[in-house]
Amino acid sequence: MSLGRTPDFYRYVEHPISGAQRDGDFVVIRWPDGEEMRAYALWLFENRMGDESIDERTRENKLDPADLPSPEALSGVAVAPNGDLEVTWRGYPPSLYHSGWLRHVHEGRHTQSAHIPPVRTWTVSTLPELPTFNGPHVLQNDEALRAWLTALAELGIARLVELGSDEEVVTKVGLRIGALRDTNFGTTWAVTADLDPGSVANTALPLAPHADLPTRETPPGYQLLHCQVNDCTGGLSHMTDGYAVAEYLRDNEPDVYGILSRAKWIFFNRSPDHDHRWSGPLIDHGGPDSPLTFRTFHPVRAFPDMPESDVPLAYEALRRFSALARSDEYQLRSVFAPGELVAFDNRRILHGRGPFSETTGRRVLRGAYVDHDEVHSRLRVLMRRHQTARISDGPE
Amino acid sequence: MSLGRTPDFYRYVEHPISGAQRDGDFVVIRWPDGEEMRAYALWLFENRMGDESIDERTRENKLDPADLPSPEALSGVAVAPNGDLEVTWRGYPPSLYHSGWLRHVHEGRHTQSAHIPPVRTWTVSTLPELPTFNGPHVLQNDEALRAWLTALAELGIARLVELGSDEEVVTKVGLRIGALRDTNFGTTWAVTADLDPGSVANTALPLAPHADLPTRETPPGYQLLHCQVNDCTGGLSHMTDGYAVAEYLRDNEPDVYGILSRAKWIFFNRSPDHDHRWSGPLIDHGGPDSPLTFRTFHPVRAFPDMPESDVPLAYEALRRFSALARSDEYQLRSVFAPGELVAFDNRRILHGRGPFSETTGRRVLRGAYVDHDEVHSRLRVLMRRHQTARISDGPE
Repeated sequence: MSLGRTPDFYRYVEHPISGAQRDGDFVVIRWPDGEEMRAYALWLFENRMGDESIDERTRENKLDPADLPSPEALSGVAVAPNGDLEVTWRGYPPSLYHSGWLRHVHEGRHTQSAHIPPVRTWTVSTLPELPTFNGPHVLQNDEALRAWLTALAELGIARLVELGSDEEVVTKVGLRIGALRDTNFGTTWAVTADLDPGSVANTALPLAPHADLPTRETPPGYQLLHCQVNDCTGGLSHMTDGYAVAEYLRDNEPDVYGILSRAKWIFFNRSPDHDHRWSGPLIDHGGPDSPLTFRTFHPVRAFPDMPESDVPLAYEALRRFSALARSDEYQLRSVFAPGELVAFDNRRILHGRGPFSETTGRRVLRGAYVDHDEVHSRLRVLMRRHQTARISDGPE
Repeated sequence: MSLGRTPDFYRYVEHPISGAQRDGDFVVIRWPDGEEMRAYALWLFENRMGDESIDERTRENKLDPADLPSPEALSGVAVAPNGDLEVTWRGYPPSLYHSGWLRHVHEGRHTQSAHIPPVRTWTVSTLPELPTFNGPHVLQNDEALRAWLTALAELGIARLVELGSDEEVVTKVGLRIGALRDTNFGTTWAVTADLDPGSVANTALPLAPHADLPTRETPPGYQLLHCQVNDCTGGLSHMTDGYAVAEYLRDNEPDVYGILSRAKWIFFNRSPDHDHRWSGPLIDHGGPDSPLTFRTFHPVRAFPDMPESDVPLAYEALRRFSALARSDEYQLRSVFAPGELVAFDNRRILHGRGPFSETTGRRVLRGAYVDHDEVHSRLRVLMRRHQTARISDGPE
């Protein structure tokens, strides 16, 4: 069996290198356009195809790091006839590295953010209507799926229409992306005033701008809400870009922004059978690489978890943030029609609704959660296929 | 309908207060034993039972923070005849606060860590055998479930025995805790060399000490592995307490510990249909309140994401960490017998296995993931019930 040429299953355009030389334990790789990449010897070793490093069947590195050789095992570098990098090793067979694969790393296309569109914040004046896509197309066609997910990642929100009223719609749409995130509410769940309420969501009460499940370490990334029935008066759907509100506060009211990002609250749910708790600020930066999370479902914001001197300021900031989030400038309000599915970033977009009248009709939504990881993975795969389709068919 | 006395559904022992007075916008609450609590006026307002604040049916706060009154709405405080706190408000009906509920907040039993046992690290000399519990008891009895989950939270690992070999065992055990975490491998998944391998786990290769899915923002919290068949030679199960290794390095080799906690790697899976990526250090402290996460599944550790000067140090530290993790001092090795289920904290315990021989027999495991949130919620509910069972029946 001939070995695969890359430590993965992707296709890369050939990008022949023009030179390679050793510099201590690094290899300096050069392209004819003057670009230069520095690769550490042991990183190259880990990415060798074959028995010592990359497993041929899974293309996963099977090396226990405790067994890595010394970087001095690298004994020579050269340019192969086809422009690949050729490395010789003391005590191991030589190895080849695909020039296009090296170039994709050099260009940063291996990074977490590589195929994910950058965030664009919005207010009602820049986004007066929900971005809208044809639901059946998204279910059947990968390019339509890619367009919808791209809008979702950029704006945090995008709507599908013409999906009908079946209970299975939200599951079908979710599985086009990836695994659904299960919680104590189930893999999919109803929002309707007909239910015995375990949450204020299942009442006819208005809901202030919020993001679901701040009681979790990592709240659900995206929320899919499908409207099955809506023939009552009231119950407008409200959406606010939390990022836009946070940007405004950061630039104009830094004290308010500061306390919202610093002062922690204990969030917990009050169910007899569950007791989820998390302590964090309203504007939660999480780890150094985590996306911003708004912990803004006030029905489960239960206790201040901050120095006493911060408490009055934190309440004042809370009030200010909520007033902005529901203002005409930031809150996009729309009718939620049967057959529509609104997807939004649950850690970014604050959703809510106006009160509705239970006597005039029914309002039945079905929801599901899909984590950021899943949306990003699907987007990367679709982007990769989209790009590969444009690669002229060279030898792989 | 008489209002519930607390903003939740729990029972509290009466703990009559002896005094209450106003201090600016705070209320100072005193108990006969000298304990004193300071409560902010608006926090008390948010926790009023009734129409303005706590919804009677859900016991959730239904107040939009933008509508909070000024703290000066608080006009008077007093001790009620039964020792509860009584507060009068300008423009709102007076409200009562259960003395036992106030005391539980004062004692910090409302916090995230309140009912979760503290972590105890271990090495092979302090934990020579896996802590073991009777599986059928855990499936049927809540006290047995509590004992098992307590060991799991403390030690990061605990085994169930006598569960038989049915494929459904792992689901049944998982659902005793809460929602299972689905991934592209499915809600439950097989580990066996019979499969077309999408991961090195499904080969007969040895697996170095690792933690699953470092490609995710928050890797799965707990892993349940149920052994259905194991009649081949080899394939010992390996378990290392990552916390113990990290403690040792922090205290004895601070440079190694430093680089492991600082230098980031891009983790990504190489599947044709998924492209999960995350960038983080091996010892990942995440957000300020996140539990430590070990990102140690080397088959998906793909690219350094750090300054070049850190790369050689990072490889050296990687080698050192892996050598410790698989040493006799830290790695607990055991036979995995059919009918056993080993549960472990996937962000703490590094698991692995010895190589096995595919010609001598089969080794079939079935796994599932359950997040920390779910384990902690279940533990809190069980602890609460355990404690409530000991409360003498006073009026609720």
